[in-house]
Amino acid sequence: MARYDIAIIGTGPAGLEAAITAKIRKKEILVLGSKTSSLKVEKAHEIQNYLGLPAISGADMQKVFLDHATSMGVEITDDRAVSIYSFGDFFGIQTRDNNMYEARAIILATGVVMAKPYPGEDEFLGRGVSYCATCDAPLYKDKVTAIIGSSPKEEAEADFMAEYASKVYYFPLYKEEVKVKDSIEVLYEKPQAILGDTKVHTLKTDQNEYTVDGVFILREAVSPGQLVPGLETEGPHVKVNLDMSTSMKGVFACGDIAGAPYQYIKSAGQGNTAALSAVNYLAELDRK
Amino acid sequence: MARYDIAIIGTGPAGLEAAITAKIRKKEILVLGSKTSSLKVEKAHEIQNYLGLPAISGADMQKVFLDHATSMGVEITDDRAVSIYSFGDFFGIQTRDNNMYEARAIILATGVVMAKPYPGEDEFLGRGVSYCATCDAPLYKDKVTAIIGSSPKEEAEADFMAEYASKVYYFPLYKEEVKVKDSIEVLYEKPQAILGDTKVHTLKTDQNEYTVDGVFILREAVSPGQLVPGLETEGPHVKVNLDMSTSMKGVFACGDIAGAPYQYIKSAGQGNTAALSAVNYLAELDRK
Repeated sequence: MARYDIAIIGTGPAGLEAAITAKIRKKEILVLGSKTSSLKVEKAHEIQNYLGLPAISGADMQKVFLDHATSMGVEITDDRAVSIYSFGDFFGIQTRDNNMYEARAIILATGVVMAKPYPGEDEFLGRGVSYCATCDAPLYKDKVTAIIGSSPKEEAEADFMAEYASKVYYFPLYKEEVKVKDSIEVLYEKPQAILGDTKVHTLKTDQNEYTVDGVFILREAVSPGQLVPGLETEGPHVKVNLDMSTSMKGVFACGDIAGAPYQYIKSAGQGNTAALSAVNYLAELDRK
Repeated sequence: MARYDIAIIGTGPAGLEAAITAKIRKKEILVLGSKTSSLKVEKAHEIQNYLGLPAISGADMQKVFLDHATSMGVEITDDRAVSIYSFGDFFGIQTRDNNMYEARAIILATGVVMAKPYPGEDEFLGRGVSYCATCDAPLYKDKVTAIIGSSPKEEAEADFMAEYASKVYYFPLYKEEVKVKDSIEVLYEKPQAILGDTKVHTLKTDQNEYTVDGVFILREAVSPGQLVPGLETEGPHVKVNLDMSTSMKGVFACGDIAGAPYQYIKSAGQGNTAALSAVNYLAELDRK
């Protein structure tokens, strides 16, 4: 398996800036995330305080960022990191599409999960609660599952689940029209709590209770502690130092995941610092 | 005297980003520095990694940054902060042009002094060594002074000094043609050490020794410990936290002065964070 120098997780301003900086430093990089950068950027009305791009719309900013990255030879792998494990001097990265990658350093730039966890979510994680339908679908063969989707991008995961489960309830948390397989029951209700005993048995909404074997919560970003087990966090953020290093050697974080303020220029600036710190880290490894 | 909410010291990428962010938050700001932004930006050949401005020349970057700031109503006061003192809940700022300003919070964005001090510089500071000809020229009436100028901008200070001193030696550290008063002796030698006993008596160069009463070292940026007495520093940098706060309440720092990497996008990102932290600090003061 090819081992990358740096895996950059996320393609918002922090991830893209990290990518171009690492490219300039001639590193082999893997950039995992959406090919369309950040949904948050795309939907922004107007950004006034990104120095050098006055009064720019989110859609235009998304375009200039992606064009800049493309012009530097940055390629985005449209997949999502689900778990990252340290193997000493390198890391293994498991993705939603069931690919495995290896990299010597990691830059986390996934954004921040602003949503509070559902009651029961943390309690039943791994006992009926999952964040990756593609990873765990085979475990739910002939069972009943609920999928909570935060964006239309999650519909493919629901379709995949329907190939295994006997019944799939789909709860869209967005306004766009839902296009999933006919066998999936789409419910416009608000999930409120996950109930169980030794494992999940019920999803409670604002209107009903559903008996289920599993609940899949598919958000734009996974919380950092779930993504990198063992990483020191502070609430929804990764604890970082001024050079964007974290509590784990070789893991760097930047952008919203590294804490407030949630601002594009701050994210890009931290992406630059994270990339240069990762480059220094690799140089140290090579000297050993 | 009008008391500003925030005084921003420096007009490079960090200072300009801090200024536009503070403007958006409707703060009364004083921006002290060069109206042409940063000489370092202006002279940069091509910047490849400022996300959103691919392959841009330093001169073009300088223009888009200044245009952006101007479009937001940012006004630059073309003067240089020489000393900043805390008076509890506000600060006094003394400038090169002998103005005094007051502000409730300070953002330091002056860049970093890369030069090592000359032997004797720290030892004789205040005893013949000075960083501000305009401030101290009257003290050198009918005396002999040497002025070490890091850029053509310092020539006006040499001219001013010549109105007082009996003799002025001018040592340009740059290649541009020197245009100073005829009475000033321009010497193309490299200053190497400042010698004295209780106070300065000699400037030693690579070629000669000059008997002088004072040595004025005029650099693009003053070192942070000289600018803000009492501020905790690390070498040439201000010690900062992740939110760009410093060891002194109400003082924030960003950009090169806050440490490596010396990168425009990192500086701008930190300028944004510093401004928002200053805004939060002011809100706290107001709640008291």
